[in-house]
Amino acid sequence: MTVPRLTTALSGPLADLERRLLASQADGERWLRGQWQDHAAPFYCSVDLRNSGFKLAPVDTNLFPGGFNNLNPEFHSLCVQAVMTAIEKSCPDARGVLLVPENHTRNQFYLQNVVVLQQLLRQAGVNVRIGSLLPEITAPTELTLDNGAKLKLEPIERRGNRVLVDGFDPCVVLLNNDLSSGAPDILRNLEQTVLPPLHAGWTVRRKSHHFGVYRRVAEEFAKLIGIDPWLINPYFEKCGKINFQEKKGEECLEGYVAEILDDIRAKYKEYGITQDPFVIVKADAGTYGMGIMTVKDPSEVRGLNRKQRNKMAVVKEGLQVHEVMVQEGVYTFEHVEDAVAEPVVYMIDHFVVGGFYRVHTQRGQDQNLNAPGMEFRPLAFASPCSSPNPDDPGCPPNRFYAYGVIARLALLASAIELEETEAALESGAAPRVAAAS
Amino acid sequence: MTVPRLTTALSGPLADLERRLLASQADGERWLRGQWQDHAAPFYCSVDLRNSGFKLAPVDTNLFPGGFNNLNPEFHSLCVQAVMTAIEKSCPDARGVLLVPENHTRNQFYLQNVVVLQQLLRQAGVNVRIGSLLPEITAPTELTLDNGAKLKLEPIERRGNRVLVDGFDPCVVLLNNDLSSGAPDILRNLEQTVLPPLHAGWTVRRKSHHFGVYRRVAEEFAKLIGIDPWLINPYFEKCGKINFQEKKGEECLEGYVAEILDDIRAKYKEYGITQDPFVIVKADAGTYGMGIMTVKDPSEVRGLNRKQRNKMAVVKEGLQVHEVMVQEGVYTFEHVEDAVAEPVVYMIDHFVVGGFYRVHTQRGQDQNLNAPGMEFRPLAFASPCSSPNPDDPGCPPNRFYAYGVIARLALLASAIELEETEAALESGAAPRVAAAS
Repeated sequence: MTVPRLTTALSGPLADLERRLLASQADGERWLRGQWQDHAAPFYCSVDLRNSGFKLAPVDTNLFPGGFNNLNPEFHSLCVQAVMTAIEKSCPDARGVLLVPENHTRNQFYLQNVVVLQQLLRQAGVNVRIGSLLPEITAPTELTLDNGAKLKLEPIERRGNRVLVDGFDPCVVLLNNDLSSGAPDILRNLEQTVLPPLHAGWTVRRKSHHFGVYRRVAEEFAKLIGIDPWLINPYFEKCGKINFQEKKGEECLEGYVAEILDDIRAKYKEYGITQDPFVIVKADAGTYGMGIMTVKDPSEVRGLNRKQRNKMAVVKEGLQVHEVMVQEGVYTFEHVEDAVAEPVVYMIDHFVVGGFYRVHTQRGQDQNLNAPGMEFRPLAFASPCSSPNPDDPGCPPNRFYAYGVIARLALLASAIELEETEAALESGAAPRVAAAS
Repeated sequence: MTVPRLTTALSGPLADLERRLLASQADGERWLRGQWQDHAAPFYCSVDLRNSGFKLAPVDTNLFPGGFNNLNPEFHSLCVQAVMTAIEKSCPDARGVLLVPENHTRNQFYLQNVVVLQQLLRQAGVNVRIGSLLPEITAPTELTLDNGAKLKLEPIERRGNRVLVDGFDPCVVLLNNDLSSGAPDILRNLEQTVLPPLHAGWTVRRKSHHFGVYRRVAEEFAKLIGIDPWLINPYFEKCGKINFQEKKGEECLEGYVAEILDDIRAKYKEYGITQDPFVIVKADAGTYGMGIMTVKDPSEVRGLNRKQRNKMAVVKEGLQVHEVMVQEGVYTFEHVEDAVAEPVVYMIDHFVVGGFYRVHTQRGQDQNLNAPGMEFRPLAFASPCSSPNPDDPGCPPNRFYAYGVIARLALLASAIELEETEAALESGAAPRVAAAS
């Protein structure tokens, strides 16, 4: 796989940030090692980053990553090694894994992701079968993908507190399905280990919770390496009671948009940045890519037209949006040829195993690149994220290392977030995992 | 790095063995995972394998591997990831590592190995300095290698129970020195973690102990996957009281040589193998490559001539040989062009991180390829050892996977061997680690 060289409009501060991360590598890695002694990383995770040249920050953290097919196959061995560690930690006794994918049967890219995941798990030495939640899968069904790969979907059976497919009794259920419509009954109260846990699904998880934890993580890390936490942390606020169709809660939204724009403006002034500040308004739960808008002025969220309101009101699986996050927008200043590019970093257990650029020719530097129906070109990272060279400032591996550090901070935030959710569920302070609708 | 395809004279049994290993992958990996819950892998390890087409077995296990420069640089990221795991386990709090190499200052290949090791440790996020045991290194000394790389050797200082170099106070001392001449006083009774432990050095370690443990490991594993353990385990015996120069102990040697040759002959008959059996006689302690001979008839070890006796009597650092191991010789049937080739597998913590072929044009299939002054060409494995494809029997990644499994059995034997040695030292059943002579 050939990976063209990215051009990045590097201005001072990011080069500074990279330098700080590299200069503090031993302290930073030691701190991270300490964190992983206290917090268990989720099985896997992908983090969308935005790199504005002056700022490098996560904007979305996915606990059911669906783009393993976009990674550089030359580094699949890193994934295999990390899967071995993940299995060792959570289920050393496992021989069989049931992989439960999203209910897509026509999205070739997604299905290729499932094929790659299955292959990585097999190479790590476990037997893998694919259990589908689709009601129409009533018998083993083999799909042949456009690239020739084959994929066998099998109906999941429930026997007591276990799930099986065709007599195959797995030790672990690995979800690659973000449970946007809730946890189906067939997966509830299993005696088998479910990874990630059901409460990592979107009926329980909230982006604002994640970014609240991330803020604490980023502040501690920024203090450790002596930087302004804002350089790695986007401002955000949450509006909890929105009803777009009934035009309720717009004042809350408008107020936070104004507040965050003001805060960004102050920081831009401090750093001499001349771009226009912008914020992203998005659903607090659910898959990134729907229910999302770019806003540069508070007045834009007042009196949305019908089309805009409909767009914001629902996300994947028809889930209604009542909770909204207003997040500082981070420009992406990385380009591949004429297209804007945004890095996505993949992690298994607590290891960075690769990543790719989401490249989009039709979108601007201030827009979400993970849009519905978007035709992004994935562009795998050419080198692993673990080979920085402090003697060669500005070299791509240093950039990848910086990505890997920030992505791991988001991963750590996820680990803490899931712990907190679990504790809240146990104490009854949070609602139970919703059943599938 | 281009790696030519190896040709292997595959006969039935090895293809069978590969097939068995692949068919039992989930069981085998699960068993290994269980073993690593009970036994801590050494920091790193390399294993010399011999692949005779009908048999695949370790013949030497090195706990201070010196060929990291021979690995495929494309897979250095696997090493970095494994180093991160190794450090996490044994010293998560570490920021600084003192690497103590062999006392070679002119062996370019070895020094390149030290450069690569230093780089891998740095990329894993620790500060590394190189502390030399050479008495002539009294001040920081920078060497420039033939390939342009630079290496700074610094004198080790002892302060109380710690070692330092020039004010750098490491948390960990990583030995890449096999302590053939004993553990120097400066490294004894340190409060810093020493990896591998001093008792992994050759004044304490015995090959016969290692292969005794390996025999148990191989038998258990062979039972698990349903194969004859002989297919992965070479016969051996130990003669404890040899004095080559005084011609003492030759009867013991001759007796064991005869016994092992008979045992091999019986197995060859069972499997219809027509080659001549042979054994390797080697020093029970000390670096492979000296004090070693190929024997096809018991009479060969009686009445050795002066030259042969001198060759066998001493190994590295002038260490006298009084203990000898007689080990079943395993033919190497792998070739690169016209040269015989023997695989060497590298592991960090319990992960296979790569390997290379030791290729030698001047030697036969029944000879040790790690001979003094040998001019071997190292040939890095083209793919990682973790990407077997059961649907493509005979493909190189399947061969590499098989190598990785057998190498990990030897690694596991090392882990158990070091535990046993430590217990014996603690109970006083074994002599203390010898001081440097």
